[in-house]
Amino acid sequence: MSPLKIYCDVQAGPELIDWLRERVAPHELILPKSGSVSVLSVAPLDPAMAEADIIVGQPNVEGVLTSGKARWLQISSAGFTRYDTPEFRAAMKERGIVVSNSSHVYDQACAEHVFSFMLANARQLPRALAARCANGVPEWDALRSACHLLQGQSLAIFGYGAIAECLVKLLAPFEMEITGLRREPTGDEVVPVVPVAQAEAVLATADHVINILPDNPASRGYFSTAQFAAMKPGAVFYNIGRGTTVDQDALAAALQSGKLSAAWLDVTDPEPLPEDHVLLDLPNCFITPHTAGGQNGETKVLLNHFLKNLRRFEKGEALVNRIM
Amino acid sequence: MSPLKIYCDVQAGPELIDWLRERVAPHELILPKSGSVSVLSVAPLDPAMAEADIIVGQPNVEGVLTSGKARWLQISSAGFTRYDTPEFRAAMKERGIVVSNSSHVYDQACAEHVFSFMLANARQLPRALAARCANGVPEWDALRSACHLLQGQSLAIFGYGAIAECLVKLLAPFEMEITGLRREPTGDEVVPVVPVAQAEAVLATADHVINILPDNPASRGYFSTAQFAAMKPGAVFYNIGRGTTVDQDALAAALQSGKLSAAWLDVTDPEPLPEDHVLLDLPNCFITPHTAGGQNGETKVLLNHFLKNLRRFEKGEALVNRIM
Repeated sequence: MSPLKIYCDVQAGPELIDWLRERVAPHELILPKSGSVSVLSVAPLDPAMAEADIIVGQPNVEGVLTSGKARWLQISSAGFTRYDTPEFRAAMKERGIVVSNSSHVYDQACAEHVFSFMLANARQLPRALAARCANGVPEWDALRSACHLLQGQSLAIFGYGAIAECLVKLLAPFEMEITGLRREPTGDEVVPVVPVAQAEAVLATADHVINILPDNPASRGYFSTAQFAAMKPGAVFYNIGRGTTVDQDALAAALQSGKLSAAWLDVTDPEPLPEDHVLLDLPNCFITPHTAGGQNGETKVLLNHFLKNLRRFEKGEALVNRIM
Repeated sequence: MSPLKIYCDVQAGPELIDWLRERVAPHELILPKSGSVSVLSVAPLDPAMAEADIIVGQPNVEGVLTSGKARWLQISSAGFTRYDTPEFRAAMKERGIVVSNSSHVYDQACAEHVFSFMLANARQLPRALAARCANGVPEWDALRSACHLLQGQSLAIFGYGAIAECLVKLLAPFEMEITGLRREPTGDEVVPVVPVAQAEAVLATADHVINILPDNPASRGYFSTAQFAAMKPGAVFYNIGRGTTVDQDALAAALQSGKLSAAWLDVTDPEPLPEDHVLLDLPNCFITPHTAGGQNGETKVLLNHFLKNLRRFEKGEALVNRIM
């Protein structure tokens, strides 16, 4: 294979860029003149992209559509809302551009993050860490009684994909009753999975409801008053998917009424929420600022994921995390 | 077996006492006149205990030693410091009194509690829950970089017993490198276990150090300046055993110097710590008020544990959690 041009707008320090340049050689690394971008921002249109055979990062959508030579786009995030349109898909197909994402990079971190939410809630950590009560006083008894075992409880996971599979594996020793929900079950999932259309019966019995739905026209605002009303009283709701899939007013109402005992959110709409947002005032709503996918050395893990796919691309093998 | 007298000082509401009375019949339930006690308090001396064949709860030590008829003592906690003396052990042996504790009741809750500490630390929950930063700003990058995967990290567990076995089972999918430490390894543990005397080499490489040591003359103040100095820089220290096993000044110094990246404690000495205690001021020290063993319906779980042992006692079978 003759040397290719790789356009990469991934945010990385000079040392890591040198590290990458060494590893992609003899291919040529092209960096954006305007500087690199975070995985969650929109990059400006960059004429340099037009020369690239491979595009890596969060490139401007118009830039990809007008690039003359691109054969492969690797998106540096798990979510890919801005590329997930019929027009973009059709254009990629027509021009033979393969599209992959980086969901493998974030699966384990995201699964550990929502697991930390589940255990922090079960052990009432926010309340317990703030308490300084003596053994045996009423506050102490109340705190211990508010704790519960995860062991044996029931769990519904909406948006059953790679993160869910990873979570299910981590939760195995807890012997929970787990049901997955996705648009179209594949039948080879490791736990029972039903179509999202059958959600009502699952919601009625789940102690824990995890939302990992991606953002798309079908999922937007999916968790609304009706879904929260269908949940088991006292259920705990978690969101590590996208904030747009939840009607936040309906969520606030379910938390205020006590229908839900708590919500743990890593994503909101918008991010961050405005200072006066009702969810920020609720004592049973816990929010982290979209850090579920984060880990020490994250960029290197991300670039390694690209390098592994580059070796596959060179050999004409199927790419990992191909999405189009 | 002719009906026995069961003296029970476990703290329980009238409904639960009725529930218990029904289930121990035809044996007779005797309650302390002075009221019941928490699992962590010292009960007053109660003459009624002298009549009992079976004693359940946290009875006064002198009361047990002077009881005329007792054949079985079931302690309602996992720890049993106040009974763990050569004199008490000798007296029980001489008089043929079997002693059991309730560690099975607390194993799962304690294991889930320390697991919640590990994941909350890995995902930087206290910091993330307080942050309201936007995606991509320096605070956000720093927060994501401060997170780490538990997957594949190394862990040392001091006081390798029933709680540790439960934790090891829960952690299995995380594929951590786990070493247990106990006074005398039995050889049938599910992970490599070495004598505490060989701690130095284990401490040098452990990313996480969990202390579940019981309180006794050998363990008191065990985690001192030397032990913290022997730890891997940046290690995380957890204590769900007893506060007395840690030199708290040495711990504070290790947290202040950054030798330890964080400490998560469910037990301290005393409990709670005085308001001006140095550990309460450290941003990398997280304390819950001895709630690790707590769970919803805890007293019923505890009484069920006793009832199961009562059936065994009636049949002359070996008791669960026998300690003397």
